[in-house]
Amino acid sequence: MEYIFSDKVSGLKPSMIREILKHGSNPDVIPLSAGNPAVESFPVSEMAQIAAEIFEKDYSKALQYGITEGHTPLREITAERLKSKFNIGKDFDSTIIVSGGQQGIDLTCKVLCNEGDTVICENPSFIGSLNAFRSYNVKLCGVELESDGINLEKLEEALKTNKNIKFIYTIPTFHNPSGITTSLEKRKGIYELARKYNVFILEDNPYGELRYTGEDIPTIKSMDEDGRVIYCGSYSKILSSGIRLGFVCAPSEIVSKIVVCKQANDVHTNQFFQMIAAEFLTRYSLDEHVEKIRSIYRRKLGLMLDGAEKHFPKEVSFTRPEGGLFVWCTAPEGTDIMKLASLCIERKLAIVPGVAFLTDPDIPCNSFRINFSTPSDEQIVRGMEILGNTLKDILA
Amino acid sequence: MEYIFSDKVSGLKPSMIREILKHGSNPDVIPLSAGNPAVESFPVSEMAQIAAEIFEKDYSKALQYGITEGHTPLREITAERLKSKFNIGKDFDSTIIVSGGQQGIDLTCKVLCNEGDTVICENPSFIGSLNAFRSYNVKLCGVELESDGINLEKLEEALKTNKNIKFIYTIPTFHNPSGITTSLEKRKGIYELARKYNVFILEDNPYGELRYTGEDIPTIKSMDEDGRVIYCGSYSKILSSGIRLGFVCAPSEIVSKIVVCKQANDVHTNQFFQMIAAEFLTRYSLDEHVEKIRSIYRRKLGLMLDGAEKHFPKEVSFTRPEGGLFVWCTAPEGTDIMKLASLCIERKLAIVPGVAFLTDPDIPCNSFRINFSTPSDEQIVRGMEILGNTLKDILA
Repeated sequence: MEYIFSDKVSGLKPSMIREILKHGSNPDVIPLSAGNPAVESFPVSEMAQIAAEIFEKDYSKALQYGITEGHTPLREITAERLKSKFNIGKDFDSTIIVSGGQQGIDLTCKVLCNEGDTVICENPSFIGSLNAFRSYNVKLCGVELESDGINLEKLEEALKTNKNIKFIYTIPTFHNPSGITTSLEKRKGIYELARKYNVFILEDNPYGELRYTGEDIPTIKSMDEDGRVIYCGSYSKILSSGIRLGFVCAPSEIVSKIVVCKQANDVHTNQFFQMIAAEFLTRYSLDEHVEKIRSIYRRKLGLMLDGAEKHFPKEVSFTRPEGGLFVWCTAPEGTDIMKLASLCIERKLAIVPGVAFLTDPDIPCNSFRINFSTPSDEQIVRGMEILGNTLKDILA
Repeated sequence: MEYIFSDKVSGLKPSMIREILKHGSNPDVIPLSAGNPAVESFPVSEMAQIAAEIFEKDYSKALQYGITEGHTPLREITAERLKSKFNIGKDFDSTIIVSGGQQGIDLTCKVLCNEGDTVICENPSFIGSLNAFRSYNVKLCGVELESDGINLEKLEEALKTNKNIKFIYTIPTFHNPSGITTSLEKRKGIYELARKYNVFILEDNPYGELRYTGEDIPTIKSMDEDGRVIYCGSYSKILSSGIRLGFVCAPSEIVSKIVVCKQANDVHTNQFFQMIAAEFLTRYSLDEHVEKIRSIYRRKLGLMLDGAEKHFPKEVSFTRPEGGLFVWCTAPEGTDIMKLASLCIERKLAIVPGVAFLTDPDIPCNSFRINFSTPSDEQIVRGMEILGNTLKDILA
């Protein structure tokens, strides 16, 4: 039989990152390519204890169908923390638990966009989100990302010249792949432009808790006076990634539509781990747990930046993120980054070519992404040396 | 701000069943309205033991990101069981783990259908699937369901007269909501018609293991010679519903597209419970576990049918399913079933009006659905008496 797919998915291919991640799962390869949290960041013994208690006393709820909006205690704790920690959540907002931040992004696009509509995003941006938008046949308009966030003049130009723009997608805090944090001034600017051109903002903040230096900057959602910001968050980087727990805080009318789509999509998120998370957040201080994670990553980021200082050729620049999981490196224009990545693989090291994160993969890109949360300290030290040497060979 | 949603979701509303289920969750109300598995069907102590071991020895995999296709051992065991038990899986097929059968249905529609395309389904049909199709703005064409399956003449008529038909959606075994099982002859007929008119078949089989009397009938997927059948299954009714584990077996080209969409949708299904399921299926005999579940439900179905015999007015007919979770009852034409359902709620009993399961909710429907897996034995006995009396009052 001949397979003809829907227009929205016929052009979709497995992402390049995914193919590279396959190398990363080879234990002989140093994985600077991944985005996996460090295993030591998971509160294993606490979760094990809570799980045993649920199997003992509360299994009839934990193994049974739950409600689409999410386990009520987890929703409430999540909403409270968003309010107290990030000043997020007005009377017009509500919160839903989703199966990882990814589902929040997917369903936001589904409820807001028709095929052919435009989403504006930073260029580069998170490939998982770009592919979610592509899977609804949405047109992507990438706007240049500068060291303090999106270029506001170019953002306004994009808002003026594109048709049927539904939202601006942004990762303002410890951006993936670049590590860049958008300044307060630019956050205000993005919000004002969204207002002026009457579009929504989808603020994706999976790394917001992972700050290692500097001061927190208010989220865009905290500035939302007229209900135009949809905020996506995640427990992947602060509890566990494999359990698929995220959340969306958005105006109730939007959340209601997301609920209807989620019901048709997966009915609800794994109930057992929603209950584990709710209980963990009730019994323990998430702030203290996050502080432990920060100290792990602060050290790893330091090792990575030291390695870059020591081994990178001078003409290769790199970001110095204040948090998150990624460093973005830029070689001189014209450098063949695909060749660099292949040579690295030969030397048992995986990195991600920057082109994977572009809205238009046909544009040349002389950057690449490296990650410090997945590799061990030793792997970072050794990996940065290999990377530096390989860069020198490529640039020679 | 004014909220304008995408065309595909703007007409979607929370399902009627959902509102009725809310009454069902009131502990004072007898829930003949739900579709929840009986809690005693979950292998709690076995899962608890396996979970403890995973937390001890294998947490670094179980709490970490996994691959989109699913945990490899679970995929393999699932595929083997499909082959040995249901003769499902040719060389051209592959199997993916999804977040409940619901996600398999949602993503199948996404990869095959453009907005405005047609899906043919039995009328009535499972509301969760109808809503998934609606959420992609697909046109639903419902074809009359008879006591041995869909009316084949009307199915052919629908195939002839509708445009851009992508697939026939069918629940041939212990159909929800009707309890009807499609005969072997009609299964062959559906497959031949799909061939003749070159459309796919989406075979949904969440209840296939739950047979209480009679002999198994081959699945439509087992007849698939040319790769046109997409088969959706679920662990919800044989392991646990709250953990959200299902699977799709379909031609590899289709599964590849589902994988790409799933990656953008939720990255992967909860890794921890995929590992619990794989280990359970390795250590224990699922056949033996299913036999236990069957004996629970065989008894409950018997109680429900006895109650209907004893208390229903003669003019109310009902199906006598050989398996599954539901009995479908039909009152004389013109009976106000919404009034019946309301009166039942006043008397602390929840049922689901049949109109919830129609492709066109504006057509009058004098049927309703009752479920025997969720209520206790006592609740079934008492509930059927209340239902019988309420039917008599309504028909008086």
